[in-house]
Amino acid sequence: MRLHSMGEQAFIERLKRHTSRPRGVIQGIGDDAAVMAWGHGRLLLFTTDMLVEGVHFRRGERDAEGIGHKALAVCVSDIAAMGGRPREAVVSLGAPADTRVSFLELLYKGILKAAHRYGASIVGGDTVRSPRLVISIALLGEVSKKDLILRKGARPGDELWVTGGLGGNPKGRILKITPRLAEARRLVKKFRPRAMMDLSDGLWTDVGNLSRASRVGARIYLGHLPVHPFAVREARRLKADPKMLALTGGEEFELLFAVSPSAGARLARAGRRALGVKISKVGEIVPRSFGIKVYAKGCVVKVKESAVWKHF
Amino acid sequence: MRLHSMGEQAFIERLKRHTSRPRGVIQGIGDDAAVMAWGHGRLLLFTTDMLVEGVHFRRGERDAEGIGHKALAVCVSDIAAMGGRPREAVVSLGAPADTRVSFLELLYKGILKAAHRYGASIVGGDTVRSPRLVISIALLGEVSKKDLILRKGARPGDELWVTGGLGGNPKGRILKITPRLAEARRLVKKFRPRAMMDLSDGLWTDVGNLSRASRVGARIYLGHLPVHPFAVREARRLKADPKMLALTGGEEFELLFAVSPSAGARLARAGRRALGVKISKVGEIVPRSFGIKVYAKGCVVKVKESAVWKHF
Repeated sequence: MRLHSMGEQAFIERLKRHTSRPRGVIQGIGDDAAVMAWGHGRLLLFTTDMLVEGVHFRRGERDAEGIGHKALAVCVSDIAAMGGRPREAVVSLGAPADTRVSFLELLYKGILKAAHRYGASIVGGDTVRSPRLVISIALLGEVSKKDLILRKGARPGDELWVTGGLGGNPKGRILKITPRLAEARRLVKKFRPRAMMDLSDGLWTDVGNLSRASRVGARIYLGHLPVHPFAVREARRLKADPKMLALTGGEEFELLFAVSPSAGARLARAGRRALGVKISKVGEIVPRSFGIKVYAKGCVVKVKESAVWKHF
Repeated sequence: MRLHSMGEQAFIERLKRHTSRPRGVIQGIGDDAAVMAWGHGRLLLFTTDMLVEGVHFRRGERDAEGIGHKALAVCVSDIAAMGGRPREAVVSLGAPADTRVSFLELLYKGILKAAHRYGASIVGGDTVRSPRLVISIALLGEVSKKDLILRKGARPGDELWVTGGLGGNPKGRILKITPRLAEARRLVKKFRPRAMMDLSDGLWTDVGNLSRASRVGARIYLGHLPVHPFAVREARRLKADPKMLALTGGEEFELLFAVSPSAGARLARAGRRALGVKISKVGEIVPRSFGIKVYAKGCVVKVKESAVWKHF
């Protein structure tokens, strides 16, 4: 069996079977970040993301800073999705021996600017030779016990919401992503979501991930999906349904979260003012036996597997 | 300027100028691991290492487990060199879409076996598509304040010691490395080194790194260097001086440490019994103005830059 036929999710599930959760580890493999008890009342969050030249970005002097920004921003998005705040990061960089030092300096400038913006610090790293540029950042975060939000915790009756617009990054190549750090903090403090994650694999797949972790099912209302302007344009070009692009897109790094009906009512009343960014109710949590279904005009829509975002 | 003409060390020095050390960070870029205050009396260690196919290993089903072992073991070596114990790790893996799942499972088996052996836990990761296999592991460690040993701290008059044999990994391709975790813990508890690091760039370069961090100079006695059996064989093949291979080798992952003369005398008396592994006194710390010099039969030996281990 090859990796692309198994898929990332199935591979991760298989790995999970080989690992045990040691003492002090509250959440291991299978959420946006790992959660560890460390000291009194504070939890340590730990996440990593890797960007590879030719897959996640093309090399070009112009984009060096953007690549650096994205490499850290995707990690910040993971920490945000747990309700936490970024802390220290280490940067592993693989680069061809003939890489211009000026290019790498711009790349680090992008990392450092993003670190400054989101309150992280670069404390170490490794620089190695590699035929292609590869950046892997590992980021620590912190969160108090009461602010921690996992993927699990959603209950039937909860409402499913997302921030921002969906489907705007169809090739995963956009570098200027904005992790929803401030929005997630506000959400946690004021609306206490029951489950949360960031959207990296597309709404369809990630509602599946959140539902699996929470052992629930979900209804998604296609008509309610907020379509990113880029997805509108892309849909016109492909003569496709923009709502379907919003459903199956990926790498938006928006927040997907489940809230109680009363918190949902407060979100609906506050609208954009709730978090300072557009928010949309996209569905509901239902019992697990119901599965995950997408509705359009009262009918169940079949989602083509071929349309769904895949890392492999 | 290209990376290979600048070199890794100069590049890191350049990066360091752009970073500031935030509150709570005791040691940032420039040691084996970063050190952060977290909770009462305990310190958090944080390190990362990246292995790239074709540079650090060749792919082959036979070696998958060994690659996984090495990917974690090099991080454990960093934590050991700070006097600490490994804790949680995250694994970023880049792999071609057509990689056999059985290969990746063996690779993770290698990581998990090494984790079990050295007391680490794999708590998360990222799996992405990449034209070549790349593994980047970030490992946390812990150490009490009194056990922390940095690269800085060596003083003139201290003795320089190493564990094991040197020059045995001339191409950096050996997968079965043994991080000196138990040895480092024993050393810290019983002999309290003033400065310590692991040997990844070769003795010559790393004595330079330790001396720079400690703002001291050093004398290395070529005749005292413990030569690894592989280096003896390699020297015969190349008709080279095995002691020079021991001086300029790299990736041995042995410990290099400076101890007070009295601790040095105790080490000399105990010999192999001190740490349960061969130890050798290889030099002395001298004032900074003296620089770093290698002696053989009372004369200063010139070290050819071309012979020195380089990552780029």
